[in-house]
Amino acid sequence: MSQRVKIKAILSSEKTNYQATVKGWVRTFRNNQFIALNDGSTNNNLQVVVSEQDMDPAEFKRITRGAAISVTGEIIPSLGKGQKLEMKAASLEILGDCDAEAYPIQPQKQSLEFLREIAHLRFRTNTFGAVFRLRHSLAFAVHQFFNEKGFVYLHTPIITASDAEGAGEMFRVTTLDLEKLPRNIDGDIDFKEDFFGRSTNLTVSGQLEGELGAMAFGDIYTFGPTFRAENSNTARHLAEFWMIEPEMAFYDLKDNMDLAEEFIKYVIGYALQHNREDLEFLAQRLADEEKQKPQQERSEMGLIEKLEFVLNNQFERITYTEAIDILKNSKPNKNKKFQYIVEEWGTDLQSEHERYLVEKHFKKPVILTDYPAAIKSFYMKRNDDGKTVRAMDILFPGIGEIVGGSQREENYDKLVERMESMHVPVEELSWYLDTRRFGTAPHAGFGLGFERLVLFVSGMTNIRDVIPFPRTPKNAEF
Amino acid sequence: MSQRVKIKAILSSEKTNYQATVKGWVRTFRNNQFIALNDGSTNNNLQVVVSEQDMDPAEFKRITRGAAISVTGEIIPSLGKGQKLEMKAASLEILGDCDAEAYPIQPQKQSLEFLREIAHLRFRTNTFGAVFRLRHSLAFAVHQFFNEKGFVYLHTPIITASDAEGAGEMFRVTTLDLEKLPRNIDGDIDFKEDFFGRSTNLTVSGQLEGELGAMAFGDIYTFGPTFRAENSNTARHLAEFWMIEPEMAFYDLKDNMDLAEEFIKYVIGYALQHNREDLEFLAQRLADEEKQKPQQERSEMGLIEKLEFVLNNQFERITYTEAIDILKNSKPNKNKKFQYIVEEWGTDLQSEHERYLVEKHFKKPVILTDYPAAIKSFYMKRNDDGKTVRAMDILFPGIGEIVGGSQREENYDKLVERMESMHVPVEELSWYLDTRRFGTAPHAGFGLGFERLVLFVSGMTNIRDVIPFPRTPKNAEF
Repeated sequence: MSQRVKIKAILSSEKTNYQATVKGWVRTFRNNQFIALNDGSTNNNLQVVVSEQDMDPAEFKRITRGAAISVTGEIIPSLGKGQKLEMKAASLEILGDCDAEAYPIQPQKQSLEFLREIAHLRFRTNTFGAVFRLRHSLAFAVHQFFNEKGFVYLHTPIITASDAEGAGEMFRVTTLDLEKLPRNIDGDIDFKEDFFGRSTNLTVSGQLEGELGAMAFGDIYTFGPTFRAENSNTARHLAEFWMIEPEMAFYDLKDNMDLAEEFIKYVIGYALQHNREDLEFLAQRLADEEKQKPQQERSEMGLIEKLEFVLNNQFERITYTEAIDILKNSKPNKNKKFQYIVEEWGTDLQSEHERYLVEKHFKKPVILTDYPAAIKSFYMKRNDDGKTVRAMDILFPGIGEIVGGSQREENYDKLVERMESMHVPVEELSWYLDTRRFGTAPHAGFGLGFERLVLFVSGMTNIRDVIPFPRTPKNAEF
Repeated sequence: MSQRVKIKAILSSEKTNYQATVKGWVRTFRNNQFIALNDGSTNNNLQVVVSEQDMDPAEFKRITRGAAISVTGEIIPSLGKGQKLEMKAASLEILGDCDAEAYPIQPQKQSLEFLREIAHLRFRTNTFGAVFRLRHSLAFAVHQFFNEKGFVYLHTPIITASDAEGAGEMFRVTTLDLEKLPRNIDGDIDFKEDFFGRSTNLTVSGQLEGELGAMAFGDIYTFGPTFRAENSNTARHLAEFWMIEPEMAFYDLKDNMDLAEEFIKYVIGYALQHNREDLEFLAQRLADEEKQKPQQERSEMGLIEKLEFVLNNQFERITYTEAIDILKNSKPNKNKKFQYIVEEWGTDLQSEHERYLVEKHFKKPVILTDYPAAIKSFYMKRNDDGKTVRAMDILFPGIGEIVGGSQREENYDKLVERMESMHVPVEELSWYLDTRRFGTAPHAGFGLGFERLVLFVSGMTNIRDVIPFPRTPKNAEF
């Protein structure tokens, strides 16, 4: 038997007239002659031509949709339409049968909702094949970008005793026997008896620990799972998702924005370069889906066009104050088409406002900066105006907030004052404050929700379709 | 002000006589003249020469160990010993003060145990600087290895409703109010009311989900946190650690061993190439530590020598049965020096036995294969002898098991039979069994504990020193 070759390698070469072995799954079997074989290395199938009379009839019958096979044969130029190469099978072995009738993946179009229910098999479809190869490439590009810049990848803890960041509701982690909860002398549950000797949760962010790393390595990033125990059943929220959080010593807000923009463009550029076929497939899928919509709801740009547009244009950078002015004077605000009318400075922006700015007004990604201190986290650096903080949110068309970041307050006294006024426990975070006591330095960072990035680049519309096994309220299947 | 340059870039170039700005932390300040400045990009410091009479006296006093500073000056050839280059400071700004007396990081040698207690600051020492830059490089090498081979990085779920793998004790994840646990009609805790509508835990392995991916993409890998709620207070165990789990369709046990060996050699080779300075520092640290030991307990090889030895020698591959024969006839077994005397085939190997094989008998990494079925997991493929399974464990000197893997049982009937005999819930894992119902194929995979790899490559001896913020029984600090 000749050496096994992946189908991607065969199809991406012009070479013909050589012997090879391929292994994969039958996608279709046409005219008792043409097998479309897929091995997951690419969405494109290798056409394998078999001859019924050369085969054992019992074996031949087992060539069904979904079956795993191994084929050895000659790679030759194809006379048929749709492919340059094909394999003429010399020998074929059935590795695993598939009852095509019972097989949940069927040849006709199946809804994304249905495929979500069989997430253990949906990787075998063209759509999810493309989505998860793309997800892989984006993840690799993240690591390559930061590695090339000399950032240290820091694994911040998943289980945490700190709940100080206040980024959201948390999941408890415990080994206590719920039927026999230990009690202390006051009758309260005694978390000293719990595994870690205290009450612990799943992390909502690695930022605070990331800052500890930045104050030693200069530049660090995290890329790991984070959690929100929020009862949000939307197409944009997951209870478990992956986040990337770079943190940089000696960066101010502008450096932070520059890095975030460069980073996003790098990973999108990487995908355009390395996953062209997957993106072309997903672009077609999106175009087909949009045909079902009324004209005015359709996107102005195709998927690839949209990605190239982001790559080739500067993100718009405006302050929160400027955004409020634009929104106040906007048509939907004046005509009371917004659900939340923008009236005064200081109000938090709603998703409809962000979408207006990005999709209608600027028609490109927007970085909003210098938000009112009152609506932002305690660790953000106060501007000299006393009212605003050096925050930045990056808003993307169709996605909303994809990045949230800020320059951090590096001054010990100002930080403690702010923590106290916001009732953040100063004692409990003494380790965090130590960075401001010993060689503090200006620094900044941001967080990017990885699934939102994959959503944007893939053109998918539900976040549950861009993570292998989504965790959402009442759902932890597989 | 000239552009900020990282110290690693300055020191790794021969270039002199140019203006630059550096930012970092003062490691030492000698003779009121020589600052050793570190910015985390390398363990090596840049010597910055300052002149007291050119500076404001108040500012000058603030140049203390641990302070963050920004310096602009000329990079010139150094006349002093120990460095080729130095910076002649033209202007110096204090960014953050550090009270050198109060600073927990002191210039004299501090114990690893003490530094573990101040894990938020230990990154600022030479030892932990080197360890965590090395950890970064190993992590990047992992991604690069698999990316180059066309593997898909699959993010398997962290929160899981499945507890079927039985790899160890699990942590419960819940949002139930422990003071008001909901009860069903039978009086049991009603997990239908919990966040996910069922009882959930933190994952112990992504393997089963990884197999789902392999049956579509061919080759996948995971790299994420896994958890064990075991009360193991040893230098080898963590409650939260990172694991790499590749899973490959169409691989048999030999392919699996070949990949694992190639993989380990690749990442070690990457570190030797990219982290030479860090490794040299750690080698010296280890050599100094070993000097404290009696002669016969010292390693035969230095750290770098040991890594090169692993790189340049084939791992020994023997079956469990062969290993039992070697152990039975070994001196420590005959002289009853083992705590657990090896008497009969079928017994599980203890750490002392593994160490004997690796450190005394073969003196190199060993791959043990074909273990008795009774001591291995349900999903491992049975050999034709009916007694053994196609398992492999890779044993490393000083570390013990670094990899555990196997060829998987791809036959539906055999797998179900085995699950039933081992009381693994067949119903609950129907999604897993679907891979064997629809186009099953031979496949294999393994898991590598990332911290054990970092431990081996860094020459550190306690696993708590190679993860930023270790989680162990009664400890979830930071």
